Amino acid sequence: MTTQKPTILAGIEAGGTKFNCVVANAVGDILHQQIFPTRLPEQTLTDVAAYFTSQSQRFGTIGALGIASFGPVDLDTRSPQFGHILSTPKVGWSHYDLRGFFAKTFAAPIGFETDVNGALLGEYTQGAAAGLRHAAYVTIGTGIGAGFLVNGQLLQGLSHPEIGHSFLARHPQDSFIGNCPFHQDCVEGLAAGPAITARWGASNSLPPDHAAWSLQAFYVAQLCVNITHFIGPEVIILGGGVMQQAHLFPLIRAEFKRLINGYCSEALLQRLDTYIVPPLLGNNAGQIGALYLAARALQGD
Amino acid sequence: MTTQKPTILAGIEAGGTKFNCVVANAVGDILHQQIFPTRLPEQTLTDVAAYFTSQSQRFGTIGALGIASFGPVDLDTRSPQFGHILSTPKVGWSHYDLRGFFAKTFAAPIGFETDVNGALLGEYTQGAAAGLRHAAYVTIGTGIGAGFLVNGQLLQGLSHPEIGHSFLARHPQDSFIGNCPFHQDCVEGLAAGPAITARWGASNSLPPDHAAWSLQAFYVAQLCVNITHFIGPEVIILGGGVMQQAHLFPLIRAEFKRLINGYCSEALLQRLDTYIVPPLLGNNAGQIGALYLAARALQGD
Repeated sequence: MTTQKPTILAGIEAGGTKFNCVVANAVGDILHQQIFPTRLPEQTLTDVAAYFTSQSQRFGTIGALGIASFGPVDLDTRSPQFGHILSTPKVGWSHYDLRGFFAKTFAAPIGFETDVNGALLGEYTQGAAAGLRHAAYVTIGTGIGAGFLVNGQLLQGLSHPEIGHSFLARHPQDSFIGNCPFHQDCVEGLAAGPAITARWGASNSLPPDHAAWSLQAFYVAQLCVNITHFIGPEVIILGGGVMQQAHLFPLIRAEFKRLINGYCSEALLQRLDTYIVPPLLGNNAGQIGALYLAARALQGD
Repeated sequence: MTTQKPTILAGIEAGGTKFNCVVANAVGDILHQQIFPTRLPEQTLTDVAAYFTSQSQRFGTIGALGIASFGPVDLDTRSPQFGHILSTPKVGWSHYDLRGFFAKTFAAPIGFETDVNGALLGEYTQGAAAGLRHAAYVTIGTGIGAGFLVNGQLLQGLSHPEIGHSFLARHPQDSFIGNCPFHQDCVEGLAAGPAITARWGASNSLPPDHAAWSLQAFYVAQLCVNITHFIGPEVIILGGGVMQQAHLFPLIRAEFKRLINGYCSEALLQRLDTYIVPPLLGNNAGQIGALYLAARALQGD
């Protein structure tokens, strides 16, 4: 007697330091997960493929994969480079066809997005953006990236958002020249983790009352003002390593209020505690988003 | 013998100084147009309504109206203030129910958008964004506003874009404090027409080799970089009174290239002449967009 094997979903949160792999049943309940360190593409992906193959033998047929990848990546489905990593300082990964590897290895549809869009989708399905139409997810760590959801759709123009390399106003007392190798004092060059370390000699180990944090709040709040005026989300979720400093949130909200100076709805000003928030899913947002991408791919979306 | 009267479309480009009114047949051919100076709401709109009534007697039944309005306006169809002007220094217009006036006066569906979204839709249907999926229209005049089209849809979050009040980096040699009454040195406070006049004593009368224009190009180019990184349009159309200075375009493109410093696709850098462009429809973009809004409303969209 043979029985039909159940369909399972495979999710990959592909980061610059680790690949967080997860399998779930068709309704998204997580069955197993494992982390692999990011090395050269072939080494990393051979391990990931072997993992999913073994999980498939255990739990069922892989119906679809969802990949939320570090960037920059080409997300234009009409591009010959769709699903490739673009130019990156990460050794071996420039122009690597990440999506293509899995398309060749598994006969299953694939959902493919940036890591930050993956985290955004995780928060949208089960987290701080659940039930909303418009949302922003900003990650502030080694770099600064963002994903935007407008009317329930990920915003995707010619490229995915790259607001880490947008410009904003320098604080009048900030004499640090910035450390972005492309633009010196763009958002990343002034406010990513390495900029904090370059300016003060440390970052997450600085005490909560250190001047670093009010300056950081100034830059992040300014970025939130710009996101408000460009996109108009209902919530701005701030994640990433730097935002592990929970004491930053009240500082950022106060700076936001000071900087926007009434140029938004009164209703928004009254609810800044629910407008500028940490991820509700914490570090799990990315893998839940990757599973959501797999579920959508399974449905042919 | 009676004949069925043809259906016509009514378009209104509602500006702070004039209401540009136009009627067209069902396929959008313009039949007549007239301009009314903007005064108090009742004075202005009584004239506009009488104009459309007389044009209707002449050409046919008004099937739908399209209104592209000065702002700020409430565009949230679920809001009780949908279609109202919000707080504005324009005497008599704060909280005026502009859309409601026409809904009461004419028994026809109404398409309602910001003036800059109207101009963007005009350029999308017949102008510089025709055939594209993603486009930005920025107007730089008394104020600075923008509309974004992503995948053929106007971007509309909680509010319409208000990028005139976003922040960008000040030029190191610019000591002008800025003249936005809310934020001093936001984009409008540094680069709208009144900021140029406040800084240099004149604006459009300054000669093309005046230092005002290279500074202006720095700010506008920086705004274009931010639009590129937030939205990813295929074209950025720069309109409005300040952009009548055609010599600004090559300066802005050169500054864009310098500021983005390779952090975009090579293909984009190779075609900046078609990326940062003036409106193809010139001053007609708004009325063509208003007619497009009417045509969409007629189709129930």
